[in-house]
Amino acid sequence: MFVSKKNIIAGRNPVVEALKQHQTLDKILISKNASGNVIQEIRTLAKENNVPVQYVPIEKINSLTNIQHQGIIAFKSAIRYQDLQQVIDFVVAKGETPLFIILDGITDVRNIGAIARTAVCCGAHAIIIPDKGVGALNEDAVKTSAGALELIHICRVNSLMKAVDELRLNGINVYASEMTATTKLYDLPLQEPAAIVMGSEDKGVFPALMKICNEKFYIPMANNFESLNVSVATGMILYEAMKQRSYTK
Amino acid sequence: MFVSKKNIIAGRNPVVEALKQHQTLDKILISKNASGNVIQEIRTLAKENNVPVQYVPIEKINSLTNIQHQGIIAFKSAIRYQDLQQVIDFVVAKGETPLFIILDGITDVRNIGAIARTAVCCGAHAIIIPDKGVGALNEDAVKTSAGALELIHICRVNSLMKAVDELRLNGINVYASEMTATTKLYDLPLQEPAAIVMGSEDKGVFPALMKICNEKFYIPMANNFESLNVSVATGMILYEAMKQRSYTK
Repeated sequence: MFVSKKNIIAGRNPVVEALKQHQTLDKILISKNASGNVIQEIRTLAKENNVPVQYVPIEKINSLTNIQHQGIIAFKSAIRYQDLQQVIDFVVAKGETPLFIILDGITDVRNIGAIARTAVCCGAHAIIIPDKGVGALNEDAVKTSAGALELIHICRVNSLMKAVDELRLNGINVYASEMTATTKLYDLPLQEPAAIVMGSEDKGVFPALMKICNEKFYIPMANNFESLNVSVATGMILYEAMKQRSYTK
Repeated sequence: MFVSKKNIIAGRNPVVEALKQHQTLDKILISKNASGNVIQEIRTLAKENNVPVQYVPIEKINSLTNIQHQGIIAFKSAIRYQDLQQVIDFVVAKGETPLFIILDGITDVRNIGAIARTAVCCGAHAIIIPDKGVGALNEDAVKTSAGALELIHICRVNSLMKAVDELRLNGINVYASEMTATTKLYDLPLQEPAAIVMGSEDKGVFPALMKICNEKFYIPMANNFESLNVSVATGMILYEAMKQRSYTK
């Protein structure tokens, strides 16, 4: 991974300060040998801010920066992440009907970039990603999104399960795509507040997450060749949502 | 470009034989200094078989193979290309309504792979590509298509203009996507025989080609951010076609 120096915050106090100021960070690397109260403080603050923490050999940190790092560095985000509840409130306050995309296990930055572009075109309001797996939307993702990642709200959450609960508590229906479902995409009421969970191409949506969704659906296909690229499938779903919503206007 | 040895045919007679047997070839490289009747014969046969010919310095050919090549090599195709008219006849004979995709200036193999997967899922019958530009669908394209390129007819033509003429002569309407169009994707009669021209993301459809299409259309968007990935846009169009066609059944 190439990381430009300006994107690294090195040293215990600078990282603590960044966390206290709620600067958006991709992740924090802590040397396996690091100890002390500050480390505990950083872990607590990182958790509060949904920033993943990784323990690595000191050599890893040495290879990434020349600055005095005291066994701790943080990567600044290319993206400004937002709080899910705040985004929901913002969309509702604007008088719009929420349309969110939840990415479960989708790590390819090209796919994420294409999904962000589609989401902006189709009027989706936010993309929700977990802080593990995708982890962070790096500069490559921003680049492949052709600027779309800066035009849409990105919510990074430490649990997609909790995010689904939060969406449902706010009256937003959560749908997950699954091949064995019996409801067709066309039959979802997408003119109502909706969030769509997109799983990875190989593993699909995480079963426990699938279970707490309002409904499963499938995209009816002409052939049994079940192999849509995830960004293409997202495009079809958002196209359907956009079409349903334009009919209601 | 990495070319495995088994994919190269070297020498004048072997290349002539491959062409006479209509073996599908990606392209032929001829040394700039090569001359003789056989060269002319190869050029004529290559044209008949829609195989592009490129003149290169002898060093280029030397760098690609150790085999005695007499100034000529050909690359075997990873794909078996088919004749457009034969594919049309085949689809019509099966009692199906043709649905074709024409790729104009789309060279990224990942996009081509994703489009092939979508085309197979949505019941499109063929992908038409020009012999210049895309040139050839190499092993990378086959790999990213997850096998889809082997499940769909691929027609490689030496002129997309002629291909559009041929489609229209066969009663197939040809539509091109353009942002300034006034017809919406929904309003195209896609349950009838149709071919869709997809242009590149930066240049769009070639103007002369656009002119001879039956109609231009646009995908209505929620936002002005006109930046769909080409494989995502193809997905929306084929989804619309598939939906229209399933309603007529």
